[in-house]
Formats: sequence, C-alpha cells, structure tokens
Amino acid sequence: MEDLALVVADAPVVAAGVFTQNVVRAASVDYDAALTPADNMRVVVTNSGNANACTGQRGVDDTRQMAALAAATCGADPDQALVMSTGIIGEFLPMDKVAAGISAAAGQLATDEAALVAAARGIMTTDTIHKLSEDRIAGSQGDVQIVGMAKGSGMIGPNMATMLAIVLTDAALTPSAAQQVLRQVVDSTFNCVSVDGHTSTNDTVLLLASGAAEKSPASGELLDRFRAGCLRVCTDLARQVAADGEGATHLITVRVSGCATRDDAHRIAAAVANSPLVKTAVAGADPNWGRVVSAAGYAGVAFDPSRFDLYMNDVLIYKRGAPVAIDAASLSADLAARHETVIDLRMNEGQAAIEFWTSDLTAEYVRINADYHT
Amino acid sequence: MEDLALVVADAPVVAAGVFTQNVVRAASVDYDAALTPADNMRVVVTNSGNANACTGQRGVDDTRQMAALAAATCGADPDQALVMSTGIIGEFLPMDKVAAGISAAAGQLATDEAALVAAARGIMTTDTIHKLSEDRIAGSQGDVQIVGMAKGSGMIGPNMATMLAIVLTDAALTPSAAQQVLRQVVDSTFNCVSVDGHTSTNDTVLLLASGAAEKSPASGELLDRFRAGCLRVCTDLARQVAADGEGATHLITVRVSGCATRDDAHRIAAAVANSPLVKTAVAGADPNWGRVVSAAGYAGVAFDPSRFDLYMNDVLIYKRGAPVAIDAASLSADLAARHETVIDLRMNEGQAAIEFWTSDLTAEYVRINADYHT
Repeated sequence: MEDLALVVADAPVVAAGVFTQNVVRAASVDYDAALTPADNMRVVVTNSGNANACTGQRGVDDTRQMAALAAATCGADPDQALVMSTGIIGEFLPMDKVAAGISAAAGQLATDEAALVAAARGIMTTDTIHKLSEDRIAGSQGDVQIVGMAKGSGMIGPNMATMLAIVLTDAALTPSAAQQVLRQVVDSTFNCVSVDGHTSTNDTVLLLASGAAEKSPASGELLDRFRAGCLRVCTDLARQVAADGEGATHLITVRVSGCATRDDAHRIAAAVANSPLVKTAVAGADPNWGRVVSAAGYAGVAFDPSRFDLYMNDVLIYKRGAPVAIDAASLSADLAARHETVIDLRMNEGQAAIEFWTSDLTAEYVRINADYHT
Repeated sequence: MEDLALVVADAPVVAAGVFTQNVVRAASVDYDAALTPADNMRVVVTNSGNANACTGQRGVDDTRQMAALAAATCGADPDQALVMSTGIIGEFLPMDKVAAGISAAAGQLATDEAALVAAARGIMTTDTIHKLSEDRIAGSQGDVQIVGMAKGSGMIGPNMATMLAIVLTDAALTPSAAQQVLRQVVDSTFNCVSVDGHTSTNDTVLLLASGAAEKSPASGELLDRFRAGCLRVCTDLARQVAADGEGATHLITVRVSGCATRDDAHRIAAAVANSPLVKTAVAGADPNWGRVVSAAGYAGVAFDPSRFDLYMNDVLIYKRGAPVAIDAASLSADLAARHETVIDLRMNEGQAAIEFWTSDLTAEYVRINADYHT
C-alpha cells in the first residue's frame, strides 16, 4: 500500500492552511501553521502510518528534515514545503523509509488522473477507499478547476489519527483571500464531520492556488464563485469521510435549522451526531426519536422543547414537543434500505442552520478499535 | 420483575433534589423540582419501564395522579409525594398498572433489608444488578445512618433512560442544608459518571432526612461528617452505575489532578471518559496512551502539553510530554486481569483534582442499543 504522497507545483503557489483545535499538536501542524498563509509554496509531502505527534524535539527535527527532502526534489527551499503526517501517535518517523519514499514519489510525478488517485491513496490509513472531488467554475479567462483529496475514516483507526485534505486549484488568489476562503469553507464542512468525536492531533486542510488559469487574483463575484466551488468540493469530501467511518453502514446527515445562532445549531447537531445512542439506533434502522430529542436537549443550548419538529428521512415524527403517529415499521424499512439517514431538526426559534455528517456505530467499529494492541 | 418502588416515611421528612440538566425534562422532574427542598415529604414513588417524558399535558397530569395515589397510601397530601420515572420516552404511563403497582407496594411496606433490596430492584431497567450502599457516622445521640439506592446502566438501554437515586438518612437536616449537601455531593459523584455521555431527560437524585436519630438539625462539624458519609455512599453508587454500564467489561476510573480549576479537571476527565477510542482501548486491554493524551487535548482546556504525566494502573507511561519506555505486554496483561482500569492524568499546573467514572465500550453495548426496535 502507498504510504507517501508528494504534490509538487511547477512554480511557487499561494498556500493557506487550517489545523486541528487540539492542544496536543503534531510537529507537522506546528510547522505548517507557522508557514501559512504564503505565496511561495512548491511542495506538500504527506506520510501515513506515523503521526509524528508527542515526539518532542526529535519530531520537530524530523518534520523539518522531511520538508527539506521534499523541497530538494524540485530545487526549492525547505520553507517552500508543507508537511502532513497521519498514523500512530508517539513513535518516531522512520526517516530512512520517509527519504526513500520521497525519492520514489519524486520519480513518479505526473499530471494525470492516475497520479491524483495515487496521491489520494498515499494519504490513506484505515480508509477503505480514496476520496477525491472536483468542481469547475467560470473564471475570467475560461474555466477554473478545483480538485480536492482527503483521508479520514473515523478519526482514528487502530491508533491511527486524523483528517487530512488538500485542495488544489488553478485559481489566482491572494494569500489572505485563500486563508479566508479556506477558513470559511472548513467551518461548514470538515468542522461539521465526526465519526467518534475524537479530535486528532494532526488534522490539517491545505489549499494551494497556482493562478495558472487567471491573470489576477479573484475578487468580488469571482471570489464568491470560487468559494462556492470550494464549498462543494469540501462538502463532498466531508460526506465521503463520514460515509467511510470505521465500521459504518450508514452515512448520517444531521440538519438543524431555525436556531437563534449558527453556534447553537452547531452544538445541537454535534450533540445528536456524537450520541452513541443515536448512532446505534441508526445502525439498527430504528426511528428512535426519543434519543434524538434527548441528545438535542443536552447540547448546552437553551431552547423551548415544546416548539421544535423532527423529521427522519423526510417523515415528520415529532411535532411541537409531541410525538406524531407514524408507520414505524415502514420508516424502519426505509432507514434500513437507504445508505444515508437524514435527521432533520427544525427548532422554530430563528434563522440559523447547519448540516453535520457522521456515521452510525456498529460492532465492527468496536472490533476495529478494541482488537488491537499497541 | 419489579417495576415500582414505594418509599414511605412514618412522619414528614426533609427532602432535597438534584435533577437532569437536559432542556427536555420528564414530567416527574418538573414536578419534583417545584416541590423541593421541603420539610414535609412523606413518600417517593418510582416506576421503571416508562419515562413519562415528551408526553405533554397528559404526562403532567399522570405524574400528579401518581403522586396523589402514592400519598393516599399513608394518608398524606398529594404535594407530600415525590415521583421518579425511568424507561421509554414518548409513551403515556399505563395508569391502571401504576395504580395497581402502588396498591401492591403499599401492602408490602417493611423496614428490613429485604424491603430495601426490593425497592432497589423496583427502580432497575437494563441494570444487571441492584445498587445499594450504606454508611454510618457518629451523631450527637449515637449513630446516624445513610443508605442509598440507585439505578443506571449506561444512561440508556433500549430507549430506557436515566440515572435515579434516593439517599435515606435519619440525620436531622434543615431543608436548605439538605439541598446544599446534596448539590455538593452530586457534583462530585453522579455528575462525574458517564456510560455513553447521553444525559437523560429523567435524571433525579433525592435525599430524604427523617431526623429520627437527632434532636436538632446538624451543623458545623456534624454536618461536615454527614456530608462526608453522604459522599462515600454516592461515590460507591456512582461507581456501581459505571461498573454496570451496558455491555461493560471494565470500570474505568479517570483521575485528573494538578489543574488550575476544578472545572478544567472535570472537562479533561469527561473528554477522556467519553472518548469511544479510549473506551474501546480499555475493552481491548490496550495501554494506548496516544488516545488518552489526544482526548485530553480536545477538552477545551488550555494546558501545556509538555508538562503533564499519565499513569495507567499506577504505571507511568507518559512523562512531561514524552512517552516512557514500559513493558507494554505486562501492562496489557494487568489491564486485562483487573476489572477496574485507572487512568491517572497529572497536569502539573495547579491544585484542582477530580475523579470520574465510566465503563469500557464493547460490541455488546452496540448489540443492546442497535438490535432493538421502537
């Protein structure tokens, strides 16, 4: 299996980054955060199998060394390379293997679809499938491309951590516009996906913009179109990550609307999405609205429990604080038949809304994460 | 199986209550919260199998009726009875069955150990064992007794919710002292226990103090002794609840010390205790410190990751931000052999500390909660 990916730009590109909110951060996260946003990046090197987290000064040195090796493949300076790592926490990087991997990857650089798939496969850990998405928007001199790749399957396999993603585009962006767009897009996509609620030490999303398709940096309406395209790509990738959650049999989309604030909507959606009882109910195709309603109730948001409505797969099941008589057997059959379960909470208290994605919880998740020894 | 418990005091007693923080509250919770603290209670009636939550006005009426029926068994007024319910959410109480159960229980009232066990069994849902604890302190006129019973097994079985507990004592307390002691004790005990992080709609802890052992309300040193005894009883019950978590094979005690504030310690302990990855690691007897360290890191507490130490079952495994070389196979064997796993995080930043209890996560938990249809 591939365990290293190298993305090289022919000329310096604009780069932005958004990183884990965990206090315990991998060496690569600190390294990238210090270098972004920037307008002179050439390389992103990613290894899987080892997170290089909790590894002290040696881990910091190893990340720098990894960047230097990657930069050297295209004659760039070490600070023109970004690094992502994912895998086991607390072990040192096998630098001889990393160096050999970088050399090998440098010899296989290509611009075709196969190379993209190989890179997307190179960043996988417990993922069962590589994750790619692309979009195209109208630029000022023709089409602008946006291509994203991601890894993540649960947050964590057997001690393997992390959601990583890279978005590549030939749009022209200033570093500050790139950073702002990425921050906004991540807030609505990768920050709205959870498999087990366990935030990793290594989460990293990078945006690289070459400007090859445009003469001047996007602004105004073109920037809005770019943001929308980037949102579509990252939404697609976030859904792919949730769908490929460890042991998952259902993708769960939690929609929360009608809140006073977006933060309220996010809290309620996250509480529902992270409840093991909601997730096991979906695994069992059980339209168990009591679990959804009670999870919403402990989200830390003050709301009127007699005001809100709940739909599952478009069936109204709870209305204004009271259960609705439904054909539970038929809804259960529908939940079992579809790969995606939609839980739709309408709070009827305001205008703010959010979508959040997670996976169901099965015995297979427990098997993957318990039947393993460090 | 018993599904109703009646606790009757010979004369009016002092009563205090602490309730769920869920916004969605069962009718019994609203009812009890309005009546406590008080100095004239006679009865507590508890049913299991039906939570009477999300049941609207009819649920409110049913709770009142249940209180009236229970009060009538000893010639008390309806507002001298407290009610606890646990079980399925969103279904109406079968009032004919409840009435028959109250009559039957009233005919079996007794003061012996067997009656206490029967009451503790009467409040069980998916619990595999009844939970009782007792303690004795020196009062001013001889011993003072403190007896507690609880139910809870996971927070929730197949749609069954809730942690319920009653603490009975012959200590003399004012209503305000009873309320204050109960609040303090619950904060360090039942508010530090989690099986699946899913706060129920019905959580209720009641303290009834008859004063039979004392001439005047406890204060000063005697009140401190009472608080300590009550803490021992509730700690024991909280540990029993975690140990009987659905599908659990290990009780997990998470100790967090050396924090700047108790709230920081509580957040870190709860993040570790609620991580499915930590819980599956313990199920697999895997000393996977990376999962513990990364869970602490996303608790929302700012701390220096290079300062803290981690012990598992008294083995130092992570020191000042770096792993310690240990015999992992021997520690794993120890984790497998003991029923209790102790995770001990020493943050070295302050004086605040906490203990938190949870259970491990097994495939059996998923089976109990997924293989069920509403």
